[in-house]
Amino acid sequence: KRRYTITLLPGDGIGPEVISVAKNVLNLTGSLEGIEFGFKEMPMGGAALDLTGVPLPEETLSTAKQSDAVLLGAIGGYKWDKNEKHLKPETGLLQLREGLKVFANLRPASVLPQLVDASTLKKEVAEGVDLMVVRELTGGIYFGKPRGFGMNENGEEIGFNTEIYAAYEIDRIARVAFETARKRRGKLCSVDKANVLEASMFWRKRVMAIALEYPDVELTHMYVDNAAMQLVRNPKQFDTIVTNNIFGDILSDEASMITGSIGMLPSASLGEAGPGLFEPIHGSAPDIAGQDKANPLATILSAAMLLKYGLGEEEAALRIETAVLDTLSKGFRTGDIYSGENKLVGCKEMGDEVLKSI
Amino acid sequence: KRRYTITLLPGDGIGPEVISVAKNVLNLTGSLEGIEFGFKEMPMGGAALDLTGVPLPEETLSTAKQSDAVLLGAIGGYKWDKNEKHLKPETGLLQLREGLKVFANLRPASVLPQLVDASTLKKEVAEGVDLMVVRELTGGIYFGKPRGFGMNENGEEIGFNTEIYAAYEIDRIARVAFETARKRRGKLCSVDKANVLEASMFWRKRVMAIALEYPDVELTHMYVDNAAMQLVRNPKQFDTIVTNNIFGDILSDEASMITGSIGMLPSASLGEAGPGLFEPIHGSAPDIAGQDKANPLATILSAAMLLKYGLGEEEAALRIETAVLDTLSKGFRTGDIYSGENKLVGCKEMGDEVLKSI
Ligand SMILES: CC(C)[C@H](C(=O)O)[C@@H](O)C(=O)O
Ligand SMILES: CC(C)[C@H](C(=O)O)[C@@H](O)C(=O)O
Repeated sequence: KRRYTITLLPGDGIGPEVISVAKNVLNLTGSLEGIEFGFKEMPMGGAALDLTGVPLPEETLSTAKQSDAVLLGAIGGYKWDKNEKHLKPETGLLQLREGLKVFANLRPASVLPQLVDASTLKKEVAEGVDLMVVRELTGGIYFGKPRGFGMNENGEEIGFNTEIYAAYEIDRIARVAFETARKRRGKLCSVDKANVLEASMFWRKRVMAIALEYPDVELTHMYVDNAAMQLVRNPKQFDTIVTNNIFGDILSDEASMITGSIGMLPSASLGEAGPGLFEPIHGSAPDIAGQDKANPLATILSAAMLLKYGLGEEEAALRIETAVLDTLSKGFRTGDIYSGENKLVGCKEMGDEVLKSI
Repeated sequence: KRRYTITLLPGDGIGPEVISVAKNVLNLTGSLEGIEFGFKEMPMGGAALDLTGVPLPEETLSTAKQSDAVLLGAIGGYKWDKNEKHLKPETGLLQLREGLKVFANLRPASVLPQLVDASTLKKEVAEGVDLMVVRELTGGIYFGKPRGFGMNENGEEIGFNTEIYAAYEIDRIARVAFETARKRRGKLCSVDKANVLEASMFWRKRVMAIALEYPDVELTHMYVDNAAMQLVRNPKQFDTIVTNNIFGDILSDEASMITGSIGMLPSASLGEAGPGLFEPIHGSAPDIAGQDKANPLATILSAAMLLKYGLGEEEAALRIETAVLDTLSKGFRTGDIYSGENKLVGCKEMGDEVLKSI
């Protein structure tokens, strides 16, 4: 039997509900695939703030580091919105990414045939969309220094940040992106603003250098404003997209909304070594928290990514993915993807249906 | 008779074609409204590079500064794509914005009833969209220093830029945005990334301070990643959006694509005093340049914005806008907005039809 330790970070809002469902799915899948999971549940985000006064307690980070993979629910909520920066749930998430050194964020966005109607895009535009955004996650303007507040030479108050990339940071995310594209349809689009920003010119130069190692992958470049348009105009043109932290934040959210089913989309954040961080891309949805209304599928699919990318357990991952598609084909829908003709279920029941299909 | 001097900057690609049409429209409108225009045509962008070696010749800038308003076609093309930064057409555009001190970029994006089918969004989502992006245009990461290339303490090559805003820069764009919202539906959404960036926290703080001057305008705040999603999910929720230079670049392009008719969309860039800069938001489309295929309506509508925002000639502006709607209602379409059932026309013929309606 293979044994893995998984750190579970339920977090805030609907986080605990979806994590509890995903845990059951992992357990059942494991028992069928000869895998045993040891789970460690730790506080994080607003929950940790309330409990310990900080959004990422040291013990949570060290437990996460020592485990084989980390599964996060969601963080944040109105309650902590006005907190100072170092006491925001979001800051805990940034610290976790930094602490685990997970520089590569993989965010797939695909339109499932069963859910094509959920997209606000016309059917012929949405149908068949299947793209992957590879976002740099531990560099750029999110972490760049100097940053802060101050005064300029005229005595005017200012606020500032630094967008900065070193060669090794671009090289390693580019390699992840080329590898990802190679396993997909062999097309990589690097998104930047190289017509204006030096950081982007440097990004483009390094991506082109790394491209020499991947002659089988077709590389193109696109400006970020154009990419934001092309995702709306014709998202099918994209296979794999690689971009920096802030552009990736914006474009991956846009891409996921294009699928119309944010409650369905998982993500994986990977480092060079050590445990990966897996989480649904949706937020903590405080307005429906505790009401058994959340869609657990994004977290279940994040658990599948955890198996595939985090533990190399591809068969177990496939089993979960198939069970999710199966459950959708049977017509089960949570409120967020319900269109009137299917069977409306809550978070727990959706989880039970996936368990049945596994 | 009112007299105005207009600097025309045809630029590259389809620029000269659309500017020539817009000039005729301005002339006819002027003759009916008692306005006389003096036009000065100057080189800019790639055309200026070929002619003078720089993308914005001093004479072009000084002519523009001395005129009452500036109408720009489009700049750029494959030919100059590999140029060094200071020899790129885009650099000329940034120098022009800086030189004219046009810090406020107004970009309307509305879905005309006649063109609702052109959007890739479902009819019920696209229908009735009518929003305005107010983008800060002469600050932020586009112009922030330090910027460039170098080495970090580990001897690694780096590329970097600075996102920076001073209070007065935020205050003045916020005021333009509040004024704009006040004349529209009274709703302003300020977009930032204040959960991560100090520059955004400062942005939000200043916008909230200026809001006290506009108690009649309803102010909300949204993170940029969420805004990129909401534009796809439900663009109708937006009235006026205000945001920084780089977020505005991305979101205004996304918003314009949502209308499905980029060939229709004008923009205005305004300063505290001095001439405004008016231009279609589409690019130079080198692939169809010189073939009489371009859609001149965005430039014609930019001329209308020039009259309204640049010269205070609201009646003349309205006359042009009405003529454009009229021409569309009669079924005339250039290739980019043609859907099979209408009358396909070229750039010149479209211009002639607008002239008839004026
Ligand atoms: C919560 C926030 C800090 C975070 C980010 O900006 O990275 C989120 O938007 C995301 O994309 O995971
Ligand atoms: C051409 C480029 C420099 C410019 C910008 O980024 O501002 C363009 O994308 C725009 O939006 O007008």
